[in-house]
Amino acid sequence: MAENKKIVVIGGSAAGPKTAARAKRLDQNAEVTIVQMAPELSMASCGYPYFVGGVFNDRKQLLSTPYGEVRDPDFFLHTKGITARTGTEVVDIDRDKHLVTCRDLETGDVDELVYDKLVIATGATARKPPLPGIDLQGVTTLQSLRDADFLRQIRDDKSITKAVVIGGGLIGIETSEALQLSGIDITVVELLPQILMFLDWELAKILENYVRSKAANVLTDIGVAEFIGKDGKLTAVKLANGTELPCELAVMAIGVQPNTRLAEAAGIRIGVTGGIDVNPFMQTSDPDIYAVGDCVEISNRITGARTRAPFGDLANLQGRVAGENVALGNSAQFPGTIHTGICKVFDFSAGSTGLSEAKARAAGYDNIVTVINASLDKPEFMGAKLLISKLVADARTGKILGVQCVGPGDVSKQIATAAMAILGNLTVHDLVNADLPYAPPFSLPIDHFIASAHLLENKMKGRLNGISSVEMKELLDSEEPPYVLDVRTPEEFDMMRLGIGETLIPLGELRPRLDELPADKNREIVCYCKISLRGYEAQGLLEANGWSNVKVLEGGVMAWPFGREK
Amino acid sequence: MAENKKIVVIGGSAAGPKTAARAKRLDQNAEVTIVQMAPELSMASCGYPYFVGGVFNDRKQLLSTPYGEVRDPDFFLHTKGITARTGTEVVDIDRDKHLVTCRDLETGDVDELVYDKLVIATGATARKPPLPGIDLQGVTTLQSLRDADFLRQIRDDKSITKAVVIGGGLIGIETSEALQLSGIDITVVELLPQILMFLDWELAKILENYVRSKAANVLTDIGVAEFIGKDGKLTAVKLANGTELPCELAVMAIGVQPNTRLAEAAGIRIGVTGGIDVNPFMQTSDPDIYAVGDCVEISNRITGARTRAPFGDLANLQGRVAGENVALGNSAQFPGTIHTGICKVFDFSAGSTGLSEAKARAAGYDNIVTVINASLDKPEFMGAKLLISKLVADARTGKILGVQCVGPGDVSKQIATAAMAILGNLTVHDLVNADLPYAPPFSLPIDHFIASAHLLENKMKGRLNGISSVEMKELLDSEEPPYVLDVRTPEEFDMMRLGIGETLIPLGELRPRLDELPADKNREIVCYCKISLRGYEAQGLLEANGWSNVKVLEGGVMAWPFGREK
Repeated sequence: MAENKKIVVIGGSAAGPKTAARAKRLDQNAEVTIVQMAPELSMASCGYPYFVGGVFNDRKQLLSTPYGEVRDPDFFLHTKGITARTGTEVVDIDRDKHLVTCRDLETGDVDELVYDKLVIATGATARKPPLPGIDLQGVTTLQSLRDADFLRQIRDDKSITKAVVIGGGLIGIETSEALQLSGIDITVVELLPQILMFLDWELAKILENYVRSKAANVLTDIGVAEFIGKDGKLTAVKLANGTELPCELAVMAIGVQPNTRLAEAAGIRIGVTGGIDVNPFMQTSDPDIYAVGDCVEISNRITGARTRAPFGDLANLQGRVAGENVALGNSAQFPGTIHTGICKVFDFSAGSTGLSEAKARAAGYDNIVTVINASLDKPEFMGAKLLISKLVADARTGKILGVQCVGPGDVSKQIATAAMAILGNLTVHDLVNADLPYAPPFSLPIDHFIASAHLLENKMKGRLNGISSVEMKELLDSEEPPYVLDVRTPEEFDMMRLGIGETLIPLGELRPRLDELPADKNREIVCYCKISLRGYEAQGLLEANGWSNVKVLEGGVMAWPFGREK
Repeated sequence: MAENKKIVVIGGSAAGPKTAARAKRLDQNAEVTIVQMAPELSMASCGYPYFVGGVFNDRKQLLSTPYGEVRDPDFFLHTKGITARTGTEVVDIDRDKHLVTCRDLETGDVDELVYDKLVIATGATARKPPLPGIDLQGVTTLQSLRDADFLRQIRDDKSITKAVVIGGGLIGIETSEALQLSGIDITVVELLPQILMFLDWELAKILENYVRSKAANVLTDIGVAEFIGKDGKLTAVKLANGTELPCELAVMAIGVQPNTRLAEAAGIRIGVTGGIDVNPFMQTSDPDIYAVGDCVEISNRITGARTRAPFGDLANLQGRVAGENVALGNSAQFPGTIHTGICKVFDFSAGSTGLSEAKARAAGYDNIVTVINASLDKPEFMGAKLLISKLVADARTGKILGVQCVGPGDVSKQIATAAMAILGNLTVHDLVNADLPYAPPFSLPIDHFIASAHLLENKMKGRLNGISSVEMKELLDSEEPPYVLDVRTPEEFDMMRLGIGETLIPLGELRPRLDELPADKNREIVCYCKISLRGYEAQGLLEANGWSNVKVLEGGVMAWPFGREK
């Protein structure tokens, strides 16, 4: 009888345990060992911000199964038949001898583990730039359970009042919310011109304006120069422009670096983006070694380019694939990512799937069409909330390349639906007649996503002459700004207005008041309303009456990312 | 110059106004007229149950745009440039002369309207069987705004205490909720063996059990024989078995009948299902006449069969297509339906897209595979809620044919995502590595839909030997019932248990207690847990130890539709 297969997994956070569990399930005779540096296993690390923010209080929930068993080495042994060694570091991989050297972090004891198949799931580490003062007490990250415990203690102690979050990405934004909910004044500092780089600028700005309205300050286009302290404790963050932001806490959230040291030392190939290179079987350049999770580099399914996507969902899916392959031989494949992501910040959500316009252009797509749609997620009488989406499509074929969505509405459903549309290679022409679930508690008769497709198709067919807020701003700042027509009701105009030189003529009064419009029928006119459905109606009406250069501001007042008069 | 095109639309509820608006937008010179019997236009009729149930109180919201303008003839004229004649019936279509005869319902005056293109959007009427007592006061439907006003008045008056809803379809269930929220005792009577026929039996039963737990009685497999009254007023509903249900109100919700009388009289072709036959351009057998909405028959996109799908979302999409075609000539096509639907009932939702198992078998699919999955919609610590899904796929290709989902969790997102997967012709193999938006406020790291696909793929690959609750019941009732193994914790077993002769051995204790299992390794064993992930682990463990006939009860305790011991 053949000897039992020995499978060793380095890393016990997310991808590692999933790989181990899947491998053991498919080969019950395999001897599966997880080696984990941290004292815990299978931590729900994406839940840390919600523990810090007090959404829940029982820390054990981060470490437990849904039925309340803590996922400790005993659990892995008895329930899964897997040996898990915590507090243990793998210090060396000997590929020739097929063994790894382990060191007990407490005792320093060293021993060796033989493997037939090895899985590297070493994760990634939060970036900490070598700035002066980076080691001051009060400068931290939110990556480990220790970090989460530290920040939660701050919440419980009510010991600090001001914090700076450095980095306006997913983790930075989630951390800001958590700390703000803990009663701490927050400033987010982002080096780039916008937060949440998975969004295009104008959607990111809408979110940024919202975050500011929740009393968290947001600074973009500015870096951190130094951490200033007193008696070893942080007292302020100094920005590149010399401004000092007094604070007792600074959380670094400027992205993660894949942990590839072990793999590199063993001569395993590292990819162009700095992650461990794997094929679709999640197999590294050494056929007996697989890698999964935040330490790897995978494929973008749309562009084909190599990319890193350190997300918990993909880590689990990769683990499932690698687990099958180490147990049964290469059979399962991981096709890559379309970079689907979402985050919640206070009562807004922001999500994206596929390519943003900026990412599409950077990837060389030069014939694309985009549209912005603002609409409610369900009928007004059911407690509607706003959604603002941007669709990016191939202008030739109409193939959907990307969808972004922000707002207080049901962003999660929008992005999940859009992700599936992209995975199915659907075009805007497929989407205009999509059959989605409709009932008033859940959506409008024409769902926001379908309505976005309608706008995009109208634009592609030359019916809707839409322009984005960014294009509109350029027009307004040009030598010859357009005639701007707001077609909302006077009541709406009283409550909220852009103040960009617009004239108010409600759509219902437009037919009899056409003589108030520019006599020059070639004059550029831009129409808009709250979300721009009425703007679109106005365009048609003006064109039918001879005006030849009429445009519609996409998303109307609701999607305007710049300052408003009121 | 050519004369302006005359477009007449018969019907002003949903599909009609959408057709008219789209046509006018694409041909601003067209003369577009809507002829509507009811006094109102563009009623949000899907919102009636929520008005009746008191979810909102301002009736005007059913008739207004999101910015508060009532969609009356003035609105249509000034804002849309469309003539709308309410309170007017079209009594005849003269196809040769291209004109329709209209009758003012108040004055009785008759006149004629000439058309170049005619659109029939006459809708459907709630079925009222010719039972004794059907005309008693207190027997109603919930179809017109008048019906909604009547039921709302009952709510406001608190004048009745008991009602019977006849029909357990979408409208029946929504109406039951509305009346129950109004403080009325409800009994739902359904002729078929289950409510909500878009669900397979076992999912419908789970919902039925839930509805019962909310104090609305549900009777299935029984018809109504008679309405009993006194002084012209309803006092009871008599069932086919002689039982009398005392009540002051009975709402008929046994489906709708397409209004085809006008079309039939004009010699327009009626389809096999009784709706007006249209091609993908929404064009009837007369090329100058189109038809849209609840009165038409369209194609099922999966089976190719003709079908009726009287839903508000499809009515709007069809109107958009027909509007374009009557304005510009045939250019837009409506591809049909995959029968996506959803309803909310108290804190549960139920949705379906594509084919249920029963519908797939009825359509001749004889090589299908199904799986039931019960899991949470997000992490426990984020306030998780349960979802129970059933996937139906082609066993040969893995192509997804249908997805049903019920539970208190986010059913709407599940069904929207699934609908898009079906529209994209995706297979289970595509879904196992789908890239959906993940963050703890929105989903589990492995989304419920992806987890369902994992189970289905495991089943198709012979790894998960799953059986449905219905199959399990058959086994239990057979000559030789299986050995039944519950692998949950003692705490879970104490709180809730099936009571079908099961033995409790928690998964974590199973390895050392294997000797308690049947010595006969060929004995049929069925494992389960709360949702059956642990059941699946148990199957693997038992098989590795020589048991050859081990099955897993899909969906575990949570998806068990039959009575439980506790």
